[in-house]
Amino acid sequence: MDSEAQHDPRRHVAIIGAGFAGLNLIANLNPKHTRATLIDQRNHHTFQPLLYQVAAAQLDAGDVARHVRGIIAGRSHARFRYGKVTAADFDAHTLTFEDGGTLPYDDLVIAAGAVYSDFGVPGIKDHAFVLKSVSDAVRLRSHLLKQIEQAAHTDASGDSGRMRIVIVGGGPTGVELAGALSELAYHAMPKDYPDLDLHSVDIQLVEMTDALLPSFSAKSQRYAERVLKRRGVTLRMNTAVAAAESDAVILADGERIPTHTLVWAAGVEAHPLAGALDVPTGPGGRINVGSNLQVLDLPHVYAAGDIAASPGPDGRPLPQVAPVAIQQGKYLGKILSRETGNRKPEPPFRYVDKGSMAIVGRNAGVAELSKRFGGFAMRGFIGWLAWLVIHLIYLPGHMNRLSAFIRWSYEYVTWDKHARLIHEPETRG
Amino acid sequence: MDSEAQHDPRRHVAIIGAGFAGLNLIANLNPKHTRATLIDQRNHHTFQPLLYQVAAAQLDAGDVARHVRGIIAGRSHARFRYGKVTAADFDAHTLTFEDGGTLPYDDLVIAAGAVYSDFGVPGIKDHAFVLKSVSDAVRLRSHLLKQIEQAAHTDASGDSGRMRIVIVGGGPTGVELAGALSELAYHAMPKDYPDLDLHSVDIQLVEMTDALLPSFSAKSQRYAERVLKRRGVTLRMNTAVAAAESDAVILADGERIPTHTLVWAAGVEAHPLAGALDVPTGPGGRINVGSNLQVLDLPHVYAAGDIAASPGPDGRPLPQVAPVAIQQGKYLGKILSRETGNRKPEPPFRYVDKGSMAIVGRNAGVAELSKRFGGFAMRGFIGWLAWLVIHLIYLPGHMNRLSAFIRWSYEYVTWDKHARLIHEPETRG
Repeated sequence: MDSEAQHDPRRHVAIIGAGFAGLNLIANLNPKHTRATLIDQRNHHTFQPLLYQVAAAQLDAGDVARHVRGIIAGRSHARFRYGKVTAADFDAHTLTFEDGGTLPYDDLVIAAGAVYSDFGVPGIKDHAFVLKSVSDAVRLRSHLLKQIEQAAHTDASGDSGRMRIVIVGGGPTGVELAGALSELAYHAMPKDYPDLDLHSVDIQLVEMTDALLPSFSAKSQRYAERVLKRRGVTLRMNTAVAAAESDAVILADGERIPTHTLVWAAGVEAHPLAGALDVPTGPGGRINVGSNLQVLDLPHVYAAGDIAASPGPDGRPLPQVAPVAIQQGKYLGKILSRETGNRKPEPPFRYVDKGSMAIVGRNAGVAELSKRFGGFAMRGFIGWLAWLVIHLIYLPGHMNRLSAFIRWSYEYVTWDKHARLIHEPETRG
Repeated sequence: MDSEAQHDPRRHVAIIGAGFAGLNLIANLNPKHTRATLIDQRNHHTFQPLLYQVAAAQLDAGDVARHVRGIIAGRSHARFRYGKVTAADFDAHTLTFEDGGTLPYDDLVIAAGAVYSDFGVPGIKDHAFVLKSVSDAVRLRSHLLKQIEQAAHTDASGDSGRMRIVIVGGGPTGVELAGALSELAYHAMPKDYPDLDLHSVDIQLVEMTDALLPSFSAKSQRYAERVLKRRGVTLRMNTAVAAAESDAVILADGERIPTHTLVWAAGVEAHPLAGALDVPTGPGGRINVGSNLQVLDLPHVYAAGDIAASPGPDGRPLPQVAPVAIQQGKYLGKILSRETGNRKPEPPFRYVDKGSMAIVGRNAGVAELSKRFGGFAMRGFIGWLAWLVIHLIYLPGHMNRLSAFIRWSYEYVTWDKHARLIHEPETRG
């Protein structure tokens, strides 16, 4: 299908990954000098910051994902290739796909993102839920709702595991999920389960360090802790997990917490593609790149977003967060659009940290602007509102934005959680 | 959890199935004399008439399903039991569930619906897609979109099967799906696949008899045929299917049609629960009931909807369509609400046939009122509009209605199909 490659004088950029980096790169390429193929093993962009809302029955799966072809429609310089890259020949400038196909490129950008990391803790792979894809979120939601349904018609008092949710990791995902599940269990669901005491649902958030939300100020961290505690979440700080079993999680001090629902939000590592390709990687499997995001010693090969270890001003790698990926995508879009033969030394990529935001629950968010932007912090209702507005703006697709906005409005007024389907894998008959 | 049963003087009606019959029954019970437990093996009501729109990427899975507890919320006489009934003791008045639980009842209503029937055609079970549940619809959609994606980067000319969809069954489901897929392939998708000739998608509708839409007038049947042909669907009338293979469907005359996408919409049979219980069944496995919907020779046991063979005015069983189930549910709601000890002979159930409606595609519907309601027929835009309005009214849940309405409006204006996620079963990493 790449017959136009022979005739098209424009440079061809292949981008692996339709995440924040890839989408922003495509949007910032100059179609006059460059054409691009966006590659992903899923046919949709996953808006990861809202996956926890799918797990908590607030949004439907379709609200937080948008098919890539719909996003790039109208950009005549952009093509989409559905498939999984398994190898790259950096000399021949060719990618190979799992299905046997190949794709030549002039410039390659590796932006495949991150996957969860179990950090070697035994049992996590088999017994924990994670939140990295739409299917992950739907699976966690279906499991949670099934636990509640089963508790509703059995005597659950002898089986504390069924009514306990243990979330490991006090970063934004863990905090946001804990807050959303407390609202689901203690406010949205009780009226639908008149025979069940949903206050017996026990939500525990386990964090290895002594603070939630590591990238925030101490004041915001304490605020998040206060809100979660007030809303019924048990916080276990300075607590490490040693192992997971099918019906319990084992802490480092030997304590055994019975649970049928363990969520692992403790951290990520680079997508395994980084290890599969012959590129230099560092801690967390991330690809080492220079100040212009070029993979060290590999001209025409770049890495961006969570899969890359891009040096920050202090020399340490930049954090694996959406704003870094977005800015790196935009940067590469401009860099790679410059006319061939007229490429001056590229200005280095500089990350502009605008701040951080996280939602703790209804009417409770924290949004902190970085010092450069005034160092202003918003907590509570105003922080929550800021979070909603920013996420609506960044959610791709008019229909997704409209749908999420309507659902949020509906749920804010009614306290009802609408997206409560249990997806059954077996369906015939 | 049924401790209140001992104290509650009201009769307890157990209803198996949260379909049209079950929901309308619950809504028409008199809470003064009756309480009810609605039982389903899914936690949601599936609005089956719109499943084909999920398969055709027009609606999201969550739009055509609503969790049962949300539907019955506010009805203090109604409870929901999530689970699969495996046995009934009609003497002891007790149901047994797959999970080991039991439920006593005073009156039992079996309304578990229908499942697809392969009528003994070999290979259908393994190689055909069906459209009876939300998961079925999502699976068909994901498969279809994958076929197109794969065709987009491989030379599909040597493999005609990949670009061919064969739908077996010219009833409303087959007709509606064929029309929706032609719109998807020939109008909605081409702009997103600039390198692929989507007019090479070959949609074939196979019907055993000489007419589509058997319950409609000859004029409407011919209208549907004309519209589908004009929109690129190949009709194969008087054609029976002999077998299905992984990459082809074999017709009765021996012809082999290569296809990777076979949809079986040829017919249904009663839910297997009918055969598992000790009740009299007839053709299609349907439970034989009397004129008051009571299962023959089993006092306090009733059947309604697609699982029941309820005699019509001509003595033949009523059709397995939503209006019958709705009216039977309402009828039983009233019958079972009457005070114990004061039960006069029940008036027999009489089905009021208001007519039939089906959608053939954009701006093209057929809606026929029965003779009793004037025998008026609407075809084309007005029939299409009537279909949309009626289905919006019957779709349960304000959010579902709002969401479907917005999506339909959006798609009508933009020609875009929004719900195009390929759900991947494997998600970790």
